Amino acid sequence: MPALADLRASVLLGPEDESALRQAGDVLADQIEDVLDVWYGFVASHPHLVAYFSTPQGKPIDDYLQRVRARFGQWILDTCNRAYDQEWLDYQQEIALRHTPVKKNSTDGVESVPLIPLRYLIAFIYPITATMRPFLAARGHSGDEVDAMFQAWCKSVTLQVALWAQPYAAEQW
Amino acid sequence: MPALADLRASVLLGPEDESALRQAGDVLADQIEDVLDVWYGFVASHPHLVAYFSTPQGKPIDDYLQRVRARFGQWILDTCNRAYDQEWLDYQQEIALRHTPVKKNSTDGVESVPLIPLRYLIAFIYPITATMRPFLAARGHSGDEVDAMFQAWCKSVTLQVALWAQPYAAEQW
Repeated sequence: MPALADLRASVLLGPEDESALRQAGDVLADQIEDVLDVWYGFVASHPHLVAYFSTPQGKPIDDYLQRVRARFGQWILDTCNRAYDQEWLDYQQEIALRHTPVKKNSTDGVESVPLIPLRYLIAFIYPITATMRPFLAARGHSGDEVDAMFQAWCKSVTLQVALWAQPYAAEQW
Repeated sequence: MPALADLRASVLLGPEDESALRQAGDVLADQIEDVLDVWYGFVASHPHLVAYFSTPQGKPIDDYLQRVRARFGQWILDTCNRAYDQEWLDYQQEIALRHTPVKKNSTDGVESVPLIPLRYLIAFIYPITATMRPFLAARGHSGDEVDAMFQAWCKSVTLQVALWAQPYAAEQW
């Protein structure tokens, strides 16, 4: 996996970050719903984002939002706890495709808009990282430990969004 | 510019961030070469990144590296000091194209590889943001002020990488 090794180096993700992510997994385990409340609150307050979980006519699809929410929660734990190996890379490819016409909607049997534009996947790096620090700090770890968990989280999210960009850019990825 | 307004909202970039960026511009003005030393040191230590400033045979092109460095320095100042208006958006589009076969190399009259892959533009969000905090803290501002400058920097870099992804994804951008 030369692309993964080079990408990991490009976001400075090393073994100490994997340890910090495991610790973050412990810290976040019983806060997942609270994190999702923040993220869903952010999406819900922006009509241009809700639109991607809505019908083409603009009506939010509650069942779709709930099913995605469950996967989003699992994704937090997977980001922290899984080895970033070939199986994980295959899973990243599946996540990537579920943002595009190849697999969006069909996974959940819904009739929503066919694509989440790439620019919003990239833009989401900011809210998905910045909102995480208070949750990482909520279990009394030292400032240095919280910072290590937070930096590892930022590196991993950036890495994953880079991977999810693959179907959008084809040979220019 | 509906896309820009929605992107700004997606990275939570507001008027207070623009003020913080102006302050960052003052703080960074006489540290630009030091910031570039860090970033170029990072690139130089990773052969898979140096390759994009090298000939197809892998020989680094010093003149190209120096010309890009001068633009990179100006980009730091522009990120902090310019209004994000239509003229700035046009400039973002020019930057975007200079990563792709449309304008890479021809801008500097060099014979380097034709493309910086999209995944490295996205991955670079991490080093280009994480390395900035010490420079923002180097002029004695309060922790809250440094954090405001740093968050604004992170938001703006994420926004700009989202804009630079446009030529890679065409109608899926």
